[in-house]
Amino acid sequence: MAPRALDYESLNENVKKVQYAVRGELYLRASELQKEGKKIIFTNVGNPHALGQKPLTFPRQVVALCQAPFLLDDPNVGLFFPADAIAKAKHYLAMTIGGLGAYTDSRGMPGVRKEVADFIERRDGYPSDPELIFLTDGASKGVMQILNTIIRGESDGILVPVPQYPLYSAAISLFGGSLVPYFLEETANWGLDVNDLRQSVAQARSKGITVRAMVIINPGNPTGQCLSEANLREILHFCYQENLVLLGDEVYQQNIYQDERPFISARKVLMGMGPPVSKEVQLISFHTVSKGYWGECGQRGGYFEMTNIPLKTVDEIYKVASVSLSPNVPAQIFMGLMVNPPKPGDISYEQFIRESKGILESLRRRARMMTDGFNSCRNVICNFTEGAMYSFPQIRLPPKAIDAAKRAGKVPDVFYCLKLLEATGISTVPGSGFGQKEGVFHLRTTILPAEEDMPEIMDSFKKFNDEFMEQYEGHGGYSRL
Amino acid sequence: MAPRALDYESLNENVKKVQYAVRGELYLRASELQKEGKKIIFTNVGNPHALGQKPLTFPRQVVALCQAPFLLDDPNVGLFFPADAIAKAKHYLAMTIGGLGAYTDSRGMPGVRKEVADFIERRDGYPSDPELIFLTDGASKGVMQILNTIIRGESDGILVPVPQYPLYSAAISLFGGSLVPYFLEETANWGLDVNDLRQSVAQARSKGITVRAMVIINPGNPTGQCLSEANLREILHFCYQENLVLLGDEVYQQNIYQDERPFISARKVLMGMGPPVSKEVQLISFHTVSKGYWGECGQRGGYFEMTNIPLKTVDEIYKVASVSLSPNVPAQIFMGLMVNPPKPGDISYEQFIRESKGILESLRRRARMMTDGFNSCRNVICNFTEGAMYSFPQIRLPPKAIDAAKRAGKVPDVFYCLKLLEATGISTVPGSGFGQKEGVFHLRTTILPAEEDMPEIMDSFKKFNDEFMEQYEGHGGYSRL
Repeated sequence: MAPRALDYESLNENVKKVQYAVRGELYLRASELQKEGKKIIFTNVGNPHALGQKPLTFPRQVVALCQAPFLLDDPNVGLFFPADAIAKAKHYLAMTIGGLGAYTDSRGMPGVRKEVADFIERRDGYPSDPELIFLTDGASKGVMQILNTIIRGESDGILVPVPQYPLYSAAISLFGGSLVPYFLEETANWGLDVNDLRQSVAQARSKGITVRAMVIINPGNPTGQCLSEANLREILHFCYQENLVLLGDEVYQQNIYQDERPFISARKVLMGMGPPVSKEVQLISFHTVSKGYWGECGQRGGYFEMTNIPLKTVDEIYKVASVSLSPNVPAQIFMGLMVNPPKPGDISYEQFIRESKGILESLRRRARMMTDGFNSCRNVICNFTEGAMYSFPQIRLPPKAIDAAKRAGKVPDVFYCLKLLEATGISTVPGSGFGQKEGVFHLRTTILPAEEDMPEIMDSFKKFNDEFMEQYEGHGGYSRL
Repeated sequence: MAPRALDYESLNENVKKVQYAVRGELYLRASELQKEGKKIIFTNVGNPHALGQKPLTFPRQVVALCQAPFLLDDPNVGLFFPADAIAKAKHYLAMTIGGLGAYTDSRGMPGVRKEVADFIERRDGYPSDPELIFLTDGASKGVMQILNTIIRGESDGILVPVPQYPLYSAAISLFGGSLVPYFLEETANWGLDVNDLRQSVAQARSKGITVRAMVIINPGNPTGQCLSEANLREILHFCYQENLVLLGDEVYQQNIYQDERPFISARKVLMGMGPPVSKEVQLISFHTVSKGYWGECGQRGGYFEMTNIPLKTVDEIYKVASVSLSPNVPAQIFMGLMVNPPKPGDISYEQFIRESKGILESLRRRARMMTDGFNSCRNVICNFTEGAMYSFPQIRLPPKAIDAAKRAGKVPDVFYCLKLLEATGISTVPGSGFGQKEGVFHLRTTILPAEEDMPEIMDSFKKFNDEFMEQYEGHGGYSRL
C-alpha cells in the first residue's frame, strides 16, 4: 500500500529537518525518568515558576479580576483585592467589549499597544507608534511569523549567532531558508566581531545565498553576554551596508547581572545614529512576559515592534496574523501590566517593588554562584552570565570520553549530559543543540533553581563531573585555557 | 537602492497570496467607521462575548482561582467562590508545577489530555489515547500545524469544501500547497455529494496534483449544515479508497439547532466501520473552547486528536509544537473544564446547566429568526442554520447592481456588503471570501447578536436590502428559485 499523507516518509521534509534540542533527547529522557519516580531538576528551559519562583502578586490580582469580572460587582471585593488592582482590572476590561472571552483585533488591543509604545518611548527617548506594535502569543510566535514573511526559499539566508537559541535554526528549517552562522567568541566573553560577520556573508554569497536578515540575541541566549552600545552601532551599520533586516531578540532586557553594560535596545541605538541609517535599516524587536522578573511563561504573551517597515508590509503581516484571529487576551493584559506597572504612591507599589527586586537580586547572586561553581570543576570553564538566565560552561571532554560517546552512538556532549542526568537528575541541554565550534563542547543550564538549592545542585554537578573526568582521563588532566 | 527584505516586493510570495476575508476589507472599513463614531454590529466573526454573551460562571471562577492561587490560602475564599470551584482549581494546579506561569509539556498538560480522552470515549463509545491528543492555542493553530506537516509543495493538494471557512485557503496558500475545491450543493441544503468529490480529485490529478488530504467542517462554516452518519461513512470510504488524510473541523459540535441530525464525530463513524477502513484512514479531529455555549474565543484554547497516525509522525508533530514551547496554560484549563464540566450533585451544576441551556436555546431561536428574516427579503434565499453559528444567505444581485459594482471596481458581493455596512452598521463577510459558484452571491453573518436586538437588526437589513433591490432593479424582480 502507498504511504499515507501522514506516514513519516510522506511528511514535509522541512518539518523533518527541524531540530529543537531544548525539548529534545535530553528533555524526553528526563521526562521518562521523572515518570519512573526520579527527582528531576529541569534546567533545560527558562521556566522560572516551574522551579519555584512565585508570580508577582499585583498582575495576578488584576488578571484574576478580569477573568472573573462578576467579582467587581461584589461589594466585598475590597476585602480580597487592593483598590489599585480593582481599578486596573476595570481599565483593561474597558478596553475590550466582551472581556477576556472575546477575540481582540488580531494585532492585540489598541489600548495595550499604546501602553507598549509609551513604555518604549520612556525606555529609549524616541516616540514609538502603536500601529507598528503587534501583540503575540509569546515572543517565539512573533519570531516565527517574521521569518516566514522574509524567507522565500533556500537561497534566502538569515545570519544567526552561534551558539544560538534554537528557535532560530528551527524556524529557518521549517520555512525552508538557509541559516548563515556567525560565531561568538568565547575567549572574548562571547563577543561579536563585525569582521567575522563580513566573512560569514561573503562565504554565504559564494554559495549563491542572498543574506536578507540578521538575528541578535541581547542579552545572549545561551551565552549571557550584553552587547555594548558601540557594538550595536557596528551591527546596525553593517546591516545598513549589507541591506539586512535586523531581528532584535530582546526578551531578557530586564535580566541584567552586572553594571558595566546595562541593556540598551537596538532601536535606541538605531534612532541615535541619525539618517540615513536610522531611516533605512529595517528592525523588528521582540519582547515577552515570560522572562524578566515576571517569568509568566505559561501565559504566552509577547510583542514585536517594527521600525522602517513600509505600510504595505505591515498590512501583510496583519493579514497573516488575522488567520489565527487574535493573541490570547489574558496575556495581552499581562503585557500591558508589565510595561505599565504600579507607580510610586500606588497602594501595591511597595509590594511590587519588593517582589521584583527580590527576584532580580537573587538571580544576580545565582548567576555568580553558578559561574563560580562551574569554574571550580575539573575541565570546565565558564564565562560569567552578564544577562539572560543561562550559564553555558565549556566542558573539555577527554579523548577517551569522546571515544566512549562514539561507541555509544552519541554526540559527545549529549553523552556527557545524559550521564549527568542519570547521575544527578539535572536536566540540561547539550551545547550541540545551540551550535559550537568543531571539537568544543558545552552545556546550557538555566540559573533558575531556587537559591537555597543552588549549593547542593552545584556540589552534585561537581561530584559527577569530577568523577566523570577521573574515569575518562585519570590524573593527567588538561591544563586550563 | 535595492529593495530591503521587508519591502513589499521582497516578501515571501506565499504570504502575499494569503486571503482571509473574515478580517478583510469589510472588517477594516467597519473598524474605520467605528473609530469615526458609527455604531457597528460585528457579525463578521463568531465572537459571542463581543456581542454580549456572558461567560459561564463556573469555569471563570476556577481559572480566576488558578490565576490568583494565593486566594486559595485565604480562609474567607468560600465567601466568594463555591467549594466545587475551589476543588477544581486545586485539581488543575496540582497537575502543573509552577501553575499558570510555567510552560507545560508542549502537547499540553497530561492531566488535561487525559480528561479530553475520557470525554471522547464517553462521546463516541471508543477509547481514546491521551498521547495522541495535543492541546493548542485555539483550533486554528492546530489546523495550521497539521497542514504545514502535510504540504510539501504546490503539487500537494488539499480537498476543501466550497464555500469554506477561509482558514483553510489561507493556510494552504501560506504553506505553498494547492487548494482542490469540492462544491457543497446549496439547493440540497449544502449537501456533500461523493461523486463531486471524485470529479474534483480526477480534475486535480489531470493537472499533476497529488491530493493528500480532505477537509470537512461539521457542522458547516459558513453553511451551517450537519453531516449525516451515512454521509460521513461515504466520506471515510472515499478517503480510504483515495488514500487521503481526513481533517475533521468539529469546532461547532455543541452548536446544533435541529433534532433530525445530531452531531456525530468522524472518529465515531470511522471506528464503527471496522477494519480495514478503521485501521487505515488517517484522521485528525479539531475542537476548541471558542465555540459551543462557551464562546471563550479570547482565551485561545483547542485540541487535536490523531487517529491512525504512526508514532514517528506524532514525534515530528511534537517536535515542531515544542519550538513554541507550550500552549497557553489558562486555556488548557478551560479545555479541561469544557470536557469535564460540573456533574449532577455538584454545587455549581444547576447554575452551569441553566446558563449553558439558556445560551443554546437562545441560539436555536436566533437561527430561526435569522433564516426567516432573510427569506422575507427581496431576492434573498437562505437555508436554515442546522448547526454552527452562521447564516449564509444567497443574495440574487440584479444585473444593474453587478454593473455598478464593476464600475466601482468591487466584486459584486463586496459592493453589496459595503453598502449594507454604510447604511446599517452591520459588518458581514461577502460570500466571495468563502468561495461560491460563478455568478452566485452570498454573505455570511453570525447568528450571535443578542436575541432582543435581532428583530431590529433584521428589520434594518430588510429595509436596506429591499431599497437596494428597488434601486438596481425597479419593480421587475427575479422570480424566486
